[in-house]
Amino acid sequence: MHRLSSPVAHALIPVAALIGIAFALYQWYLVSKIKVSVENQTHENGNGNVNGENGTHEMEEGVDGRDVRKKCAEIQEAVSIGANSFLFTEYKYLAYFMAAFAVVIFLFLGSVHNFSTHKKPCAYDESKLCHSPVANAVFTCIAFILGALTSVLSGYLGMKIATYANARTTLEAQKGVGPAFIVAYRSGAVMGFLLSSLALLVLYIAINVFKAYFHDDWEGLYDSITGYGLGGSSVALFGRVGGGIYTKAADVGADLVGKVERNIPEDDPRNPAVIADNVGDNVGDIAGMGSDLFGSYAESSCAALFVASISSFGINHDFPAMMYPLLISSMGIIVCLITTLFVTDFQKMKGIKDIGPALKNQILISTVLMTGGVALVTFVTLPVHFTLFDFGKEKHVKNWHLFFCVCSGLWAGLVIGYTTEYYTSNAFQPVKDVANSCKTGAATNVIFGLALGYKSVIIPIFAIAVAIYVGFALAAMYGIALAALGMLSTIATGLSIDAYGPISDNAGGIAEMAGMPHSVRETTDALDAAGNTTAAIGKGFAIGSAALVSLALFGAYVSRVGLDTVNVLNKKVIIGLLVGAMLPYWFSALTMKSVGSAALKMVEEVRRQFNDIPGLMEGTAKPDYATCVKISTDASIKKMIAPGALVMVTPLITGTFFGTETLAGLLAGALVSGVQVAISASNSGGAWDNAKKYIEAGASEHAQLLGPKGSEAHKAAVIGDTIGDPLKDTSGPSLNILVKLMAVESLVFAPFFKAHGGRFFKWFD
Amino acid sequence: MHRLSSPVAHALIPVAALIGIAFALYQWYLVSKIKVSVENQTHENGNGNVNGENGTHEMEEGVDGRDVRKKCAEIQEAVSIGANSFLFTEYKYLAYFMAAFAVVIFLFLGSVHNFSTHKKPCAYDESKLCHSPVANAVFTCIAFILGALTSVLSGYLGMKIATYANARTTLEAQKGVGPAFIVAYRSGAVMGFLLSSLALLVLYIAINVFKAYFHDDWEGLYDSITGYGLGGSSVALFGRVGGGIYTKAADVGADLVGKVERNIPEDDPRNPAVIADNVGDNVGDIAGMGSDLFGSYAESSCAALFVASISSFGINHDFPAMMYPLLISSMGIIVCLITTLFVTDFQKMKGIKDIGPALKNQILISTVLMTGGVALVTFVTLPVHFTLFDFGKEKHVKNWHLFFCVCSGLWAGLVIGYTTEYYTSNAFQPVKDVANSCKTGAATNVIFGLALGYKSVIIPIFAIAVAIYVGFALAAMYGIALAALGMLSTIATGLSIDAYGPISDNAGGIAEMAGMPHSVRETTDALDAAGNTTAAIGKGFAIGSAALVSLALFGAYVSRVGLDTVNVLNKKVIIGLLVGAMLPYWFSALTMKSVGSAALKMVEEVRRQFNDIPGLMEGTAKPDYATCVKISTDASIKKMIAPGALVMVTPLITGTFFGTETLAGLLAGALVSGVQVAISASNSGGAWDNAKKYIEAGASEHAQLLGPKGSEAHKAAVIGDTIGDPLKDTSGPSLNILVKLMAVESLVFAPFFKAHGGRFFKWFD
Repeated sequence: MHRLSSPVAHALIPVAALIGIAFALYQWYLVSKIKVSVENQTHENGNGNVNGENGTHEMEEGVDGRDVRKKCAEIQEAVSIGANSFLFTEYKYLAYFMAAFAVVIFLFLGSVHNFSTHKKPCAYDESKLCHSPVANAVFTCIAFILGALTSVLSGYLGMKIATYANARTTLEAQKGVGPAFIVAYRSGAVMGFLLSSLALLVLYIAINVFKAYFHDDWEGLYDSITGYGLGGSSVALFGRVGGGIYTKAADVGADLVGKVERNIPEDDPRNPAVIADNVGDNVGDIAGMGSDLFGSYAESSCAALFVASISSFGINHDFPAMMYPLLISSMGIIVCLITTLFVTDFQKMKGIKDIGPALKNQILISTVLMTGGVALVTFVTLPVHFTLFDFGKEKHVKNWHLFFCVCSGLWAGLVIGYTTEYYTSNAFQPVKDVANSCKTGAATNVIFGLALGYKSVIIPIFAIAVAIYVGFALAAMYGIALAALGMLSTIATGLSIDAYGPISDNAGGIAEMAGMPHSVRETTDALDAAGNTTAAIGKGFAIGSAALVSLALFGAYVSRVGLDTVNVLNKKVIIGLLVGAMLPYWFSALTMKSVGSAALKMVEEVRRQFNDIPGLMEGTAKPDYATCVKISTDASIKKMIAPGALVMVTPLITGTFFGTETLAGLLAGALVSGVQVAISASNSGGAWDNAKKYIEAGASEHAQLLGPKGSEAHKAAVIGDTIGDPLKDTSGPSLNILVKLMAVESLVFAPFFKAHGGRFFKWFD
Repeated sequence: MHRLSSPVAHALIPVAALIGIAFALYQWYLVSKIKVSVENQTHENGNGNVNGENGTHEMEEGVDGRDVRKKCAEIQEAVSIGANSFLFTEYKYLAYFMAAFAVVIFLFLGSVHNFSTHKKPCAYDESKLCHSPVANAVFTCIAFILGALTSVLSGYLGMKIATYANARTTLEAQKGVGPAFIVAYRSGAVMGFLLSSLALLVLYIAINVFKAYFHDDWEGLYDSITGYGLGGSSVALFGRVGGGIYTKAADVGADLVGKVERNIPEDDPRNPAVIADNVGDNVGDIAGMGSDLFGSYAESSCAALFVASISSFGINHDFPAMMYPLLISSMGIIVCLITTLFVTDFQKMKGIKDIGPALKNQILISTVLMTGGVALVTFVTLPVHFTLFDFGKEKHVKNWHLFFCVCSGLWAGLVIGYTTEYYTSNAFQPVKDVANSCKTGAATNVIFGLALGYKSVIIPIFAIAVAIYVGFALAAMYGIALAALGMLSTIATGLSIDAYGPISDNAGGIAEMAGMPHSVRETTDALDAAGNTTAAIGKGFAIGSAALVSLALFGAYVSRVGLDTVNVLNKKVIIGLLVGAMLPYWFSALTMKSVGSAALKMVEEVRRQFNDIPGLMEGTAKPDYATCVKISTDASIKKMIAPGALVMVTPLITGTFFGTETLAGLLAGALVSGVQVAISASNSGGAWDNAKKYIEAGASEHAQLLGPKGSEAHKAAVIGDTIGDPLKDTSGPSLNILVKLMAVESLVFAPFFKAHGGRFFKWFD
């Protein structure tokens, strides 16, 4: 097979990205054909034929339908405004943070050689001259800000799409499961493709722009480009934590008073916290997840590029081979595009039972197709033989080795996805067992749910371990970075099915609030139950890829600071390992307590409104939604600082005062411990949520025995669900950012730690 | 200062052990002066003056008092019989296991050189000849069985003492807090001193007997003696897991029906599971904890001796210096003896408020006194200069270095103890916050409790990290082993205050069942609340020392298999690390699910009895206690196999198939992850229990606001307490055994793994 020429490789990446963006816009166009606002419908009579094919349904709706549409439009508007306002507040504070942290980056990296602007010998090849540390510092700052801005944009776009799609999904749910599913899925796909394509495009452009300055100094180039990953993940961290606190404070607060005390349904418009709850789904799950996976993607690309830059094709300036990681991602976009067609066009959704399998098939199809795609990319871009550098030792690698590295990550992702589904979907025994344990009350429900979460860690960990072993054995740290990229190569599909969840959740909320018939709510509930599972799957992917990414970054960091070995039996390493393994607990304590105390405030406010506003329970008076939105906003902005600071400051303090070895131990400890906490938290939470839905749906004899809504078993299930909320949507998913962010930050600051780190032990010794 | 001569050193150890045993027997004698059985009192008129000083109380009791005494005696009898019968069943199965595992040890170790009985060159000094692997195998088996038997004995004696003391504590509680506290504490001391002295004595005798065979071959001697630690911890594992499942199945089952459904008080005699619950306290908390700390003590001594045997004083056969670890423990017994006098004789207990501080002071006093004791032992036994071997490198050490090593562990124990108290005692803010969160229901209670547990990990981890750093920096792996011994040197006091908890708990149960006045129950509740805290402190010590012990064993293992480095960046190590960090979750999932499903069965049986036995609720009919005891027994025996096998088999499989490096990673991963899970589980559980007690006691305005018993907040607190039960009494405390048992097992099998390990990777490469 002929290898790609450099210009073709150059062209393929932006072309794939642009195809992805075009596909996303097309999906958006399809979603936009469902009209929410009544006015629009009468004004734009040119679109009259758009709903023509659904003419019969239109007829059935009549005037009532218009009322419902109007109500949906109003609620959508309220949710959208709330989400917008929160994100603007959050991003305002993030802007200060980014500016301050950019200064920190400049000061730390610039001071490596006392702000000298002279060229210096390169770190890996001392016979050559590289750009000055100050140049690196400046470009790292630029990359950092670029990554942060792209992350902000990703989160914002995701939120916009979701708030645009939620009411449309509700309306389609009137027609049945199939149409509602399609619109929710298409909306998810808008986000999935937009984000993955954007991330690829921005990174590609940044590399080419930076190259105009760095020329042959690839070491400096990829040192600096790492700032892109740092920027992306920093924003993701605050997005996840802030959004997570926001959404769960509102959710827990709304449930505790509404469902438990007042015995009104979830998402009842009388509940003052209901708008905040629905806003939360969009800012927490959607915007947070978008930023998070963008960060993982950016970091794994940076890690792969960084390692590749010191390989033989980095040294020989073999452009197509260097671009291998980005070409894999490009192929991923195309593969996911085809995969999406399976669910939107090739298949037909017949009933509720088809939802789960359809989503599951998406992952399977994308994985199978991608395996072929990886093979193609591998053989057309890579030379047959080449050399990698594995901590000073040369490692001879063949191109098909890299094929296996990428595929090990890709297939590990599939295993993680399927395991997660098994443990969190109410179609399988584990969730049924948890539901069954509600018979004896909330306590056994919680015990079973925690045990389920712990158990669900086993298979994913083995899958990650195999991917690590294969990647490492075949291509050292480059292999790990490629395994991470492999897992993320189907990110567009992953994000689609992930974003689908909160959109369905919101759609249910809108159906309830708009007072739609029970059957609509049943449809959206079925979509949402599948959504809980896909959300858990998405979190599984996020944490699995984060584990691989941070291991790759860890390897790059160790290589960059010039350690030969990270020996567990070194006193500095072992204490780092121990303290690092503690950090996920510290972090979780902060985030869970934040959610808890914000929820307490929310409960008090909601109770106050029910007591003070006459006619609220009867539905004759409107609640004060804005105050609840404000409580969530204030709490999340204020409470995201401590956990955020813990993650951002710990590597700096450790590296500066305790040195590169302790920091290496810390990163490894946080990695191996954080993965477990994150997976178990996500899956426990997902299982509790679906155990509750299982009882509510009453679709089997067993479920009917436990139900219906309001039974003792159901009440116990609601308690479990509430406990799971902060675990699965605040602590759990933030932890994978903790793991990878500390690694990428250490890598960015590596030159400083190498030059000036370990002050405390220096005094001590 | 003159150094000890060899004969004096020889004499001091057994003398200290015998003093400890004498002191324990004296305490037992004092406890036994409280008469439970009515007959005894009339028969033994020679003891008439014993209760003379309490004559006024005696008079008040009158005939009613005799009835109560009789009832107490009956209940004590029932609990004692139940505990006896469970332990016998458990030990019967353990006997099969021990026999089988002894065969495994023999086959694995014997096969190192194909069962050759010829002498071979020593591992550390190839110029000398050591005993054959078969001899090592035989003596390791003997040591293993000896350790297992001592552990069985420790657990059994602890249980005997506790079931002897519980009713006596109840009776003394009629007289007030002071006398009840003293008898509970004395009984705890019986166990504390008996165990620590016994462990020391048996180990001392074993070493001397083994020496008669091994003579100069100290390497073989201490290789074999390590089997003692393995035996001790194996039994401890099954004791903890089996006992933990037993006690919590009964406790959870009793609470769920009794307290939650039937609204009858805890320990109400109408509850069919109440005897099983009280039996559980004795077999789980007491026997389990006894075996556990015995195991830690045996292992840290073995680890220290093992490392010392290859030091300069090992090579020079400097006996007093070699015996330094055992002399530290001997000193510990004397120091703890003096410490005990402070609470039993020097101080006067005035009221409920004094209990907590009195127990806290015990730890402080023993630590301060022990610091002096360590200094004395250090300067009279050690040469001023000597040489240790740190992975092939010589390390020159001064005697005062070792003083700091021991003290770093000792004081880290104090820090852990105080931190645990802060997070689990209802005198401080954290538990009050948890109690306060019950206002909004069980969900927030659980969220706050989990967050508290996570947060409580921070300071202990830093304390352990400092101890590790100091120990390591001053005396490499020997320093770590000494730090572990330092933390365990006050084990007699630690066990006393730890055993005090379940004894008080049982006393409360007996008071309730015997229908004693409310004031008695209030007294025992106050004792028990302090007991929850001390139990958590005991668990803190257990896990802290387990962390240090297993690190020392890990170091010994790495040294024994001849690895120069355990490099995190080695693919075999990193996958071991990741999978190792997962094991505590797998293990917890198994144990928690076991408790959950056993509790479900128990609930069904209790419900059945309430429904089927006429007059049970009215108190006119007796429940069928025996069936509940049987359910707990069967569940615990059956369900302890899987978690036990996980811990015992994993190192064997990993070492045999994946080799010494993966096993090293696995041990490190299990260590750094297991510590966090164990501490957070214990403290969350302790906090929930005391938050409930805080609301029940209603001792402050805030508490009254939340209470009284039966209020919504109290119900929420009960749910938290129930969830905490398996966390704090089954999963949490078993995890420290997991951590250290895998390490000691790896050390015992190290010669085999070194010779034949890593088969899978050999095929694979």
